[in-house]
Amino acid sequence: MSFHLTLIGIGTGNPEHLTLQAIRAMNAQDLILIPHKGAGKDDLAGLRRAICDEVLTSDTTRIVEFDLPVRNEATLDYRQRVDDWHDAIAAVWQATILAHGGARRVGLLVWGDPSLYDSTLRIAARLEPQPSIEVIPGVTSVHALTAAHATVLNEIGAPFTVTTGRRLRDEGWPPGVDTVVVMLDAGGAFREIDATGVHIWWGAYVGMKEQIIIEGPLAEVADEIMDARLRARAAHGWIMDVYLMRRT
Amino acid sequence: MSFHLTLIGIGTGNPEHLTLQAIRAMNAQDLILIPHKGAGKDDLAGLRRAICDEVLTSDTTRIVEFDLPVRNEATLDYRQRVDDWHDAIAAVWQATILAHGGARRVGLLVWGDPSLYDSTLRIAARLEPQPSIEVIPGVTSVHALTAAHATVLNEIGAPFTVTTGRRLRDEGWPPGVDTVVVMLDAGGAFREIDATGVHIWWGAYVGMKEQIIIEGPLAEVADEIMDARLRARAAHGWIMDVYLMRRT
Ligand SMILES: C[S@@+](CC[C@H](N)C(=O)[O-])C[C@H]1O[C@@H](n2cnc3c(N)ncnc32)[C@H](O)[C@@H]1O
Ligand SMILES: C[S@@+](CC[C@H](N)C(=O)[O-])C[C@H]1O[C@@H](n2cnc3c(N)ncnc32)[C@H](O)[C@@H]1O
Repeated sequence: MSFHLTLIGIGTGNPEHLTLQAIRAMNAQDLILIPHKGAGKDDLAGLRRAICDEVLTSDTTRIVEFDLPVRNEATLDYRQRVDDWHDAIAAVWQATILAHGGARRVGLLVWGDPSLYDSTLRIAARLEPQPSIEVIPGVTSVHALTAAHATVLNEIGAPFTVTTGRRLRDEGWPPGVDTVVVMLDAGGAFREIDATGVHIWWGAYVGMKEQIIIEGPLAEVADEIMDARLRARAAHGWIMDVYLMRRT
Repeated sequence: MSFHLTLIGIGTGNPEHLTLQAIRAMNAQDLILIPHKGAGKDDLAGLRRAICDEVLTSDTTRIVEFDLPVRNEATLDYRQRVDDWHDAIAAVWQATILAHGGARRVGLLVWGDPSLYDSTLRIAARLEPQPSIEVIPGVTSVHALTAAHATVLNEIGAPFTVTTGRRLRDEGWPPGVDTVVVMLDAGGAFREIDATGVHIWWGAYVGMKEQIIIEGPLAEVADEIMDARLRARAAHGWIMDVYLMRRT
């Protein structure tokens, strides 16, 4: 059975981040798959459902939820653990699509933009037979962050690097750039670098009603951010944060 | 006279890149300023007008075009030239807004996302008295590029750098990363680097009906890209291109 798979960027939590192209694509699907992520992340499945409720006008589009497999933390090698997990997710997609035989057009709602620290394309590459694949770009958390702060990402003509909390922690400030964006931080990697002359623009739940933003010289606001992060995480059960730092 | 200025990211040429938030913001303005850029770039002013025609439903929103000042190429220092130009644009905004006395809410349509290699925020900072400023994030050309190629921006957990054609030409491949995005390239800076093991995903007019994309090992497709670029530029009178390169 051959089908067409559309990865639809939906922005970062504000249903109004949806583009007209995303709304049109959603309404063109036979099936939209929505993952259940289990404890803590349920807010996000709920948000995807709410987005569908709001913009789906097509009678022929079915929404189907599937249980997202969990990573096997017993697998010690990180790459292997991720690879196995992606295999498992691809298998669940395949089974879910089969169970809804006849779906020729299948859509997946992807947080932010599908190209940015997201594995949906990698998982899709595991499907057999390979569907034709289409991607609808979306507003990323990076731009939701800069918009929330009404600030620029880069200095005029200057480069910037986007990296992860783990990298920042292990390798320090990336070489060759004065501007860094950090994603996927398990918590406070900015405390591991020399704060001299560094300004930070931080945000959690950016674009969402829970949004919190803090900005200032890193040395002055680092503790405030850690506090806010801790409290927000306790209150909501989960957190996603992203930040921009510039060195002068 | 105090006013509220909203910078509205409109995506990169596909009117369907507009978000629901951008459409709502457009309709909330008293005045939307659209620049005339003169020779070559008129397509883009036309596109902004077309976008307004399509999504404006408010009776109270006026669209006003203004002539974008040109940079004084006689000023040799690049930073000075840009600074003077930004001053001149701020003065024209101020005059245009004054001429439409009573506009409390003024909107500017910004290509892509307002934080990414765009000076609208820097120009807005020159306005006196300072308006309150709001930013609506948009789909960037980077994500329009990766969507067009249905490819990922970064490897799992790996960093990437976004830079300019000038930097790539002058400084070579940025340190510490295997993935680079290049914007604002006056033409073919990718020919200045060692192509061994480098794959390129290139696109011009991404998201627009004129879109051209080419992908492959840099050594094999560099000439093809230069050719396509030359022909497209001749055909349309202007070109905007962006590319992603990955080293293995
Ligand atoms: C798996 S990545 C997905 C990124 C997504 N594709 C995008 O375009 O933003 C998840 C990371 O994105 C960032 N992120 C995503 N949504 C966010 C939000 N609403 N607020 C803050 N950070 C967010 C956080 O750094 C988080 O760890
Ligand atoms: C002044 S910058 C503005 C970028 C914009 N703010 C964004 O978010 O994409 C202009 C550069 O963006 C890239 N660009 C913008 N729109 C593009 C398009 N439709 N196709 C290809 N490149 C584009 C090109 O590299 C161009 O030189």
